[in-house]
Amino acid sequence: MDNTKYASLLEQVRSKRPLVHHITNYVTVNDCANVSICIGAAPVMAHSRDEVAEMVSMAGALVLNIGTLDQRQIESMVMAGTKANDLNIPVILDPVGAGATRLRTETAHSLLHRLHVSVLKGNAGEIAVLAGAEGRVRGVDSDGVSGDPAAIARKLADRLGIVVAMSGPTDVVTDGTRTLLVENGHPMMGKVSGTGCMAASVAGAFAAVTHDHLASTAAALAALGLAGERAAAGCGGPASYKIALLDEVYRLTPDELKKGAKIREA
Amino acid sequence: MDNTKYASLLEQVRSKRPLVHHITNYVTVNDCANVSICIGAAPVMAHSRDEVAEMVSMAGALVLNIGTLDQRQIESMVMAGTKANDLNIPVILDPVGAGATRLRTETAHSLLHRLHVSVLKGNAGEIAVLAGAEGRVRGVDSDGVSGDPAAIARKLADRLGIVVAMSGPTDVVTDGTRTLLVENGHPMMGKVSGTGCMAASVAGAFAAVTHDHLASTAAALAALGLAGERAAAGCGGPASYKIALLDEVYRLTPDELKKGAKIREA
Amino acid sequence: MDNTKYASLLEQVRSKRPLVHHITNYVTVNDCANVSICIGAAPVMAHSRDEVAEMVSMAGALVLNIGTLDQRQIESMVMAGTKANDLNIPVILDPVGAGATRLRTETAHSLLHRLHVSVLKGNAGEIAVLAGAEGRVRGVDSDGVSGDPAAIARKLADRLGIVVAMSGPTDVVTDGTRTLLVENGHPMMGKVSGTGCMAASVAGAFAAVTHDHLASTAAALAALGLAGERAAAGCGGPASYKIALLDEVYRLTPDELKKGAKIREA
Repeated sequence: MDNTKYASLLEQVRSKRPLVHHITNYVTVNDCANVSICIGAAPVMAHSRDEVAEMVSMAGALVLNIGTLDQRQIESMVMAGTKANDLNIPVILDPVGAGATRLRTETAHSLLHRLHVSVLKGNAGEIAVLAGAEGRVRGVDSDGVSGDPAAIARKLADRLGIVVAMSGPTDVVTDGTRTLLVENGHPMMGKVSGTGCMAASVAGAFAAVTHDHLASTAAALAALGLAGERAAAGCGGPASYKIALLDEVYRLTPDELKKGAKIREA
Repeated sequence: MDNTKYASLLEQVRSKRPLVHHITNYVTVNDCANVSICIGAAPVMAHSRDEVAEMVSMAGALVLNIGTLDQRQIESMVMAGTKANDLNIPVILDPVGAGATRLRTETAHSLLHRLHVSVLKGNAGEIAVLAGAEGRVRGVDSDGVSGDPAAIARKLADRLGIVVAMSGPTDVVTDGTRTLLVENGHPMMGKVSGTGCMAASVAGAFAAVTHDHLASTAAALAALGLAGERAAAGCGGPASYKIALLDEVYRLTPDELKKGAKIREA
Repeated sequence: MDNTKYASLLEQVRSKRPLVHHITNYVTVNDCANVSICIGAAPVMAHSRDEVAEMVSMAGALVLNIGTLDQRQIESMVMAGTKANDLNIPVILDPVGAGATRLRTETAHSLLHRLHVSVLKGNAGEIAVLAGAEGRVRGVDSDGVSGDPAAIARKLADRLGIVVAMSGPTDVVTDGTRTLLVENGHPMMGKVSGTGCMAASVAGAFAAVTHDHLASTAAALAALGLAGERAAAGCGGPASYKIALLDEVYRLTPDELKKGAKIREA
């Protein structure tokens, strides 16, 4: 369990300060902006068809989050994603609520089909639904899956040829061949709106500094989860916990990530 | 003054974790999501005409908030509300800024006409305007009413056959026949953007667990107000107060609500 | 260095509680609402073409922020701005990301051309781009300018006949003839998404109470910067810093502004 690689990725995020272009929901967008700054990246949010291709061209990564989806946003996502693909800029997709409505499920499938997504990050229910397995999604929350979550994620990653990250008490990150399990995190993260979205933003920041998106995604989830562990001390509830979580992301050093990341091969 | 009923409603919110579908403004939407989680519900925000009917079908309540209104949102509200009515899912309407512009006043009237709204919750100016009484609304704030607020609310509730909640130093909750006065709360709540919106979200969570919407709304306002009282201790200003408010909503137990709710018949 | 004038402006904001109409981005809109309340103003956000003219008519100032721009928002900005001009209501423009994409640059130019903007407030890169000087903007961040920032701002202010405020370690506020330098602030403000947007909101609150927009803008930047200095004590990271910043804006007294404002003629 040598975490040097992950620590080095955090170091690179901090030194390169990659621009991370988000097309995301209006619920947690402020949290995504702030967590991006805290991890060391520069966030920008832009959704107009008149600028997304130009904006993403400057970016180190593109984060697509379908949490408050509509048709215009889908068009913008395709435009930005297509340009990102042309320029080999990694695309992170967070299929928020896939499985809850047909619009979300079909849009997630369609984006995966029309774009080369580098990292698909969702909760267990969302990933299972997209894998064609039995997943249950209630609103934007996973309501459980039938079968082995890691196997479902691995199969989907293998089929799509991309990295799939399935969040949960233990996060599963897999490219279909290798599978990493990330055991950082804290139950309070589930009591805050937007920690899943933040994970996608942090994954975008890490994806911007390396071509190894299995490692970058595991590092991102470990970094956020480790901050989440440290934030729990003395917090009075979900709101003060979120504040502490963001502060801890900011304060997390590569050395601390090296010591604290709980990443292992499955 | 037996608060057992109200305490039991909080208990049910916590155990059933109702899904509360919001079509709401982009200013305070994150606060609405987080207060929903803190009270024990599962929030989901979705506005696209391509999914609102499907999303609301899973929900325990629908919260419509016109704080940043436009034509497309109105259509979505009608679609979601119509489906909610078909399925007997309670609809909470927060007519933010009714009285300030014709669009808001007319939309609030139109939604009340086209949908069966279970609970209409607004500030004194908004409710007065909708009651056809003299109410003054400045931006999104009540600027006072002429006449007895409780009488205005009662008359409107009676005419519409719904529960009307008028927020203020003393909240008035009435179905036209019975009127409850809720005296929980703290002046600092008026210094935070979104406490009114949060009240509607919490009212949605409580409305999802009972058919008695007079009781559910009073319980919701008492719960938020009691949390607001507890949050005031040692806060340094409105921002830290909001954090403490959300934390206190999360920490509030049914037993504490039973002891602390200040609800009485008018 | 007599700050009596600036202190008096804060006093007037607190006593008049001006309504500040925002058409702004969905990333930091909640921060804009809350900082407006904390400084003593009443914020309202409204973007629909069906109400912006009516809403702005009640307002003391209009804040236009292009942080998440699209065509529909541009139309609303022009409608609201035109009405504000008709009624002599000051318009504050924050050209977020001008220089990063053509849409943002052209929209900023177009708004400056079609409307009488009272105060243009941007970072160094944005102001330089709009001045036709060499400015670099990366996403929504200034990436530096070539030449003397104060001279660039002065020239643009002179050409447009408006007040230009260029934020930075030292803020430059100029009407082309007189130039004020504001040296309040703290590096942590750069680690929080939205402090620039907040500055425009506070500038709107101050612009609402005087015709001297050179003074009002300097006072606004000094007030926010001074709060930013005070917030730094004991904060644990950017998120707790933002909470403290808002609290300190709320707690700032005219007398403290008088003593602490670092405003001097260039």
